Amino acid sequence: MATTTELPTCDDVAQAAERLDGVAVRTPLLRSDLLDELTGGRILLKPEGLQRTGSFKIRGAYNRLKQLVETGQDRGGVVAFSSGNHAQGVASAARLLDMKAAIVMPSDAPALKIANTRRLGGEIILYDRWIEDREAICARVAAERGAIVVPSFDDAGVIAGQGTVGLEIAADAKALGLTLDAVYVPASGGGLAAGIGLALDPATELYTAEPAGLDDHARSLAAGERTANDPAARSICDALLAAMPGRMTFALNRTRLAGGVTATDGQVLRAMAFGYEALKLVIEPGGAVALAALLSGGISAKDRTVAIVLSGGNVAPELFARCLTQGS
Amino acid sequence: MATTTELPTCDDVAQAAERLDGVAVRTPLLRSDLLDELTGGRILLKPEGLQRTGSFKIRGAYNRLKQLVETGQDRGGVVAFSSGNHAQGVASAARLLDMKAAIVMPSDAPALKIANTRRLGGEIILYDRWIEDREAICARVAAERGAIVVPSFDDAGVIAGQGTVGLEIAADAKALGLTLDAVYVPASGGGLAAGIGLALDPATELYTAEPAGLDDHARSLAAGERTANDPAARSICDALLAAMPGRMTFALNRTRLAGGVTATDGQVLRAMAFGYEALKLVIEPGGAVALAALLSGGISAKDRTVAIVLSGGNVAPELFARCLTQGS
Repeated sequence: MATTTELPTCDDVAQAAERLDGVAVRTPLLRSDLLDELTGGRILLKPEGLQRTGSFKIRGAYNRLKQLVETGQDRGGVVAFSSGNHAQGVASAARLLDMKAAIVMPSDAPALKIANTRRLGGEIILYDRWIEDREAICARVAAERGAIVVPSFDDAGVIAGQGTVGLEIAADAKALGLTLDAVYVPASGGGLAAGIGLALDPATELYTAEPAGLDDHARSLAAGERTANDPAARSICDALLAAMPGRMTFALNRTRLAGGVTATDGQVLRAMAFGYEALKLVIEPGGAVALAALLSGGISAKDRTVAIVLSGGNVAPELFARCLTQGS
Repeated sequence: MATTTELPTCDDVAQAAERLDGVAVRTPLLRSDLLDELTGGRILLKPEGLQRTGSFKIRGAYNRLKQLVETGQDRGGVVAFSSGNHAQGVASAARLLDMKAAIVMPSDAPALKIANTRRLGGEIILYDRWIEDREAICARVAAERGAIVVPSFDDAGVIAGQGTVGLEIAADAKALGLTLDAVYVPASGGGLAAGIGLALDPATELYTAEPAGLDDHARSLAAGERTANDPAARSICDALLAAMPGRMTFALNRTRLAGGVTATDGQVLRAMAFGYEALKLVIEPGGAVALAALLSGGISAKDRTVAIVLSGGNVAPELFARCLTQGS
């Protein structure tokens, strides 16, 4: 079980929920009268910025690391490459489980992200992104230390952990007496969407939300095969820049997704301002992409019950201040 | 029952919780690893900015208005004076219950607050704060329309509704396996603190948090009688500017409070920046005053389990942007 390469099932998500009980924040499912008015639907918001480390990523990381403890594979620690939310998730999960974590980050990553990851107890291994290969560095660290590589999405334990977001959405919608018509999930590698798909009732439609021009999941779904983004495409959604869907995530998503929506940078900034004004939440650009699609008319929610995942809140204050003062 | 002037009990809070079930957001009780590290304690955060209308105020307002429906006193509607969170709470509660609500606001109130209250369905009655008496206007509207005045804190139904915040804190702390040592509550008229005091186990200490120089609750407690603030005192905490504790709220708080803490404007701004950075929450100045006291050393939380109420999130974007870019 050095890597968990078999596709996870809904049972794996249920087991992940047990592991995460008391560790992950059980984030609430929020309503907004204004959103309901604007859309004519019943909108449910899942704010994962309130999660430990400011994004959903600790769910998958902790589930995977806890599996390693259970199978006695934790002695060499773990290694991951990420300059963002996955790095913080792995570092935090490792500290909670008293494991060593090495995080491979590009030497030009934002100082704040490096500092946050170090503060969580992660050992930072910097590399030059122009001349070095991060996967090779990970493999070398893993070989030298007997450490286990924790991928950011293409891993059964990671996907199952992210799926607990879906379990909570389904349970809380039911407690409100609502039947979920659709769930919209920001997608980069697709692990969150894949996990949520396992947890939802099959009658609930599942959609990815992606930055305009970086909609590899939507295009892969339409093409019936994994399709990469244009390497020249750019977005302020720094958490959603994976080159293409994962092998495992696409295997799950291709049969589960009903489709995908997109939002432009401008729509994302306006959604962040809406989050501030109407929801009192700090949402990072990538975390706001599904909300942006909803607010800009890319999602038809009229007379439907629709859950929108707000996947994280780690955003530089300069950018957040700019979206506030520019108005919505 | 034109006004509810008898002191409420913990039974009234339990009944309020039944009325508010499915209406008020059951806001979560959040943890922050960073706050625990910084303080050496177990800190629990109650983010009422996530509540409908962006503050706890709808709890008390809805409970009071629902009582009016139950006793058949709702035909003439309600009237309230407030330029802030109580106005939005009453307007929203009235709309949910299909009642008329008139809100008496000063003509120089911020346009945004007037617009928000009107958007929620409230009829705005503007007055000149320099030459007119808002209480007299309320009384006249009430007499003309047969409307019931809904006070912002000195009312048994309002206090009992706010107390549901305390019920939720106690239940969620218990679910986490923690015994609450103390709860800190931002205080203006003192209704939130009084209600929470009814809901908590008597062994849990209760404290008010107030802006420095506007600590009428702390001084009233020390003096054993209601003591007004210096009319010249100023604070950025616009939600916490009541002149003195209420008659009913003080009758409850004087026997229940263990003390009071304060924070300066600068400490409040730094707490708002901390809320953004570490909690991903938008907190208004008055809502951040207890957190500010904690972060600045005014609360001793070492080895204790301490709940901090973040009472609201309605803050002008210019001010919020300023606290972000000034850094913490």
